[in-house]
Amino acid sequence: MEERTIQVDLCSTKKEKPKSDQLQFGKVFTDHMFIMDYSDPLGWHDARIVPYQPITIDPSAMIFHYGQSVFEGLKAYLSPEGEAQLFRPEKNMQRLNRSNDRLCIPPIDEEFALQAIKELVALERDWIPASEGTSLYIRPFVISTEPYIGVAPSRHYKFIIILSPVGAYYAEGINPVKIAVENHYVRTVKGGTGEAKTGGNYAASLKAQEMVANTGYAQVLWLDGVEKKYIEEVGSMNVFFKINGEVVTPALNGSILEGVTRNSVIQLLKHWNIPVAERRVSMEEIYQAGKDGLLEEAFGTGTAAVISPIGQLTWNDEHLYVNDGNTGTVAKRLYDTLTGIQYGKEKDPFGWIEQVEEVSRVK
Amino acid sequence: MEERTIQVDLCSTKKEKPKSDQLQFGKVFTDHMFIMDYSDPLGWHDARIVPYQPITIDPSAMIFHYGQSVFEGLKAYLSPEGEAQLFRPEKNMQRLNRSNDRLCIPPIDEEFALQAIKELVALERDWIPASEGTSLYIRPFVISTEPYIGVAPSRHYKFIIILSPVGAYYAEGINPVKIAVENHYVRTVKGGTGEAKTGGNYAASLKAQEMVANTGYAQVLWLDGVEKKYIEEVGSMNVFFKINGEVVTPALNGSILEGVTRNSVIQLLKHWNIPVAERRVSMEEIYQAGKDGLLEEAFGTGTAAVISPIGQLTWNDEHLYVNDGNTGTVAKRLYDTLTGIQYGKEKDPFGWIEQVEEVSRVK
Ligand SMILES: Cc1ncc(COP(=O)(O)O)c(C=O)c1O
Ligand SMILES: Cc1ncc(COP(=O)(O)O)c(C=O)c1O
Repeated sequence: MEERTIQVDLCSTKKEKPKSDQLQFGKVFTDHMFIMDYSDPLGWHDARIVPYQPITIDPSAMIFHYGQSVFEGLKAYLSPEGEAQLFRPEKNMQRLNRSNDRLCIPPIDEEFALQAIKELVALERDWIPASEGTSLYIRPFVISTEPYIGVAPSRHYKFIIILSPVGAYYAEGINPVKIAVENHYVRTVKGGTGEAKTGGNYAASLKAQEMVANTGYAQVLWLDGVEKKYIEEVGSMNVFFKINGEVVTPALNGSILEGVTRNSVIQLLKHWNIPVAERRVSMEEIYQAGKDGLLEEAFGTGTAAVISPIGQLTWNDEHLYVNDGNTGTVAKRLYDTLTGIQYGKEKDPFGWIEQVEEVSRVK
Repeated sequence: MEERTIQVDLCSTKKEKPKSDQLQFGKVFTDHMFIMDYSDPLGWHDARIVPYQPITIDPSAMIFHYGQSVFEGLKAYLSPEGEAQLFRPEKNMQRLNRSNDRLCIPPIDEEFALQAIKELVALERDWIPASEGTSLYIRPFVISTEPYIGVAPSRHYKFIIILSPVGAYYAEGINPVKIAVENHYVRTVKGGTGEAKTGGNYAASLKAQEMVANTGYAQVLWLDGVEKKYIEEVGSMNVFFKINGEVVTPALNGSILEGVTRNSVIQLLKHWNIPVAERRVSMEEIYQAGKDGLLEEAFGTGTAAVISPIGQLTWNDEHLYVNDGNTGTVAKRLYDTLTGIQYGKEKDPFGWIEQVEEVSRVK
C-alpha cells in the first residue's frame, strides 16, 4: 500500500527571502523540503515535509558511483489574484515515471507526488515571488542511496522535492541568442538515456557547453549521435524552426527529451492553424533554408526560458542569421500566450493550469 | 600550490572485520577514508584521512542532479611475504584525470592521489584479506558538491577514497559465463562519455543488464551506438576473442573504456608472441567465426574478475558456444599470470607492481 499522508515538521526560524529583483536561478532554497524513502520490500514510505537541510549519506551510496538518478523541473506561478498555480504538473509526474523506468528506479504514485508538490508549495507560498516573470522553481528528484559499490539497481532511494525562487529569465525582455552547432560531442543516442531526465545526460553535455561558452555562444545545438546530421535539441531545450510558413521540430526518436513546453507549443500552433510538423530535421535542411531566405524563425522551448529565440546559428564556421537577429512573431506570440496562461493573465482553453490552493492571498 | 600533506584523524573503535570466506563485493568498508575538497579559487585542499563516515551534503548539490562525477577501481593484494601491493596504480590515476577532463572536473595531482591511496591502504593493511583470490578493493571517486541547480560545471568537489575487502571473484575457480548481445540499448556512443569512468555510463547500462539477468545471462555484450554492428565491451569489462590463432579486441574508438587489464593483456600476449590485434570487430565476424569453428576463445577483462571466460554468446536467438563452454588455454594462462603477478607469486617482468610499504607484516 502506497503511503498517503505527509508528516510535517516545521522549521523554527525562517530564512530571509531574497529581493525580487535580485533573484538568480537555483541558488536559494526555501525553508522546507519534501522527502520520501524507498527500501525493499517496504516500497515508498515515510513521506514527510521537513526543514530544508543537508542530507547525510554514506560515501558508498550508489548515487556517487553509478549515477542512478532522475529529476524533474516545473514552476509555481502567482496569479493576479494571488493564487499559486502549476502548469501541466501531471506531465512532469508522468515523465518522472518514464525516467524512473529507464533508470530501473521503482515508480512513484503520480497523484501522490503531485499532492506532495502542492502541499510543499502551499506551505512555502510566501516564497513565490510576485514580480513580472518571476516564479518558484520546483525540483523533484530521486537518488539511489544503497551503500553498495556493485553495478546493479539500488534497493534504496530518496525522492526529494526542493523549491527555489527564480528571477525573470529575460531581465530586459525576450532576447535572441547565438547558438553553435556541435559536431564532435553528443548528448546521448538512441538506445541511451536521452528520453529520460537523468543526471548523466547533463554531465555529458558540460564539455561542449563549456567550449562554446568560451567563444561567445549561449548554447550548443545537438546533432544525433548516429549520423551527426539530424537536429535533436538546443542546450537543455527542445527546438523549433519556422521554414517558409511551416513550423517543424524534431520528432521524438528515443534520444530527445519530451518537453512539456514542446508539447504545449505544438498544441498552441495547431489551435492557431499554423502548420506544424514533427519529423526528422537535418542541419543541412536548416542551412539551405537559411541560404534560400526561407528560415523565418528558430527558437528553443523549455520550462526555464519558455521560448528562447535563436538569432544566430553557427555551423562549421558558417554563420546563419535568423530573422536578422530579431525575435520572430510566432516565438513572441507563443511566449506571450504561454506566460499569459502560466501567470493566470490569459484564458486557459486547454485546462493546463492547476491551482495549488484556493485561499486568496492577503496583499 | 598543490597541498602535499595529509592530516590523519584516527577512529576510536575499530569495526569487526568480516571472515575471509564470507567476503562479498563492495558491501563492507574499512575504518577510515580519505577526503580532499576542491573549491574556486582555492583548488584542491584539506587532504585528510578520517574515520569512515557518512558525508553531509546539500540536497541541491550538483551530483544529485547533473551526474558530474568520476571514479576509479583498483585493488591492493597481499604478497606471500605479507606485503601490500598495487597493480599499475599510476594507470588508474592517469585515467582518473582523463575522466575528469571529459566531465569538466579540475585535474588532481596524480602522484599525490597515489600517495593518498598508499597512505590509506598502509593504515588499513590489516583489512587486506589473506585468503586465495581475496583483496582490498580501492574506490577513488570525485563528486560535484556545489549547491546550485543550474546546468554548469560545479565549482566545488570532493575527492574521496574508500576501501572494501572483497572475496575471490570465482569461488570455485574461473568459470565461463553466458552473455547476451544487446541490440536495443546502448551504453554510450562516440562523442559521449564512454571513454570516461563516470556514473552516467553505468546508470545507462542497468536496464539492459536487468533484462538479460532475468533470462539467465551474466552480462550483456554492448554493440556500438552508431551502427549496432561493432563490438564494444561486455558488461563492465573489455572483451577479447581468439579467432583461428589470433587474439582480437575492439580498438579504442572514443566510446570504449581503456581498461588497465586490457592494456596488460595486450602486453602479455605480445610478450608471449601470440598474435594480437586492436581493431574493429563486428558481431557478424564473431558469429561467422563461431559457425566456421574458428572461434577458439572469448573472454572479458577487468579489475574485478581479471579474466572472465565467455562460454556462450546469444545473438538474436542464435546461441554460439565457445570452446564447448570451457575456459580456453590463453584465458587461463592470462588469468594465472596476471593474478600471479598481482599477488607477488610470479616475477614481474614489466614493473607493474608498486609496494605500499616495505615493513613486513607479523604473521
Ligand atoms: C534536455 C532537455 N530538453 C528539453 C527540456 C524542455 O523540457 P520542458 O519543456 O518540460 O521544460 C529540458 C528541461 O527543461 C531538458 O532538460
Ligand atoms: C565499462 C568498463 N569497461 C572496462 C573496465 C575494465 O577496466 P580495468 O581493466 O581497468 O578494470 C571497467 C572497469 O573495471 C569498466 O567499468
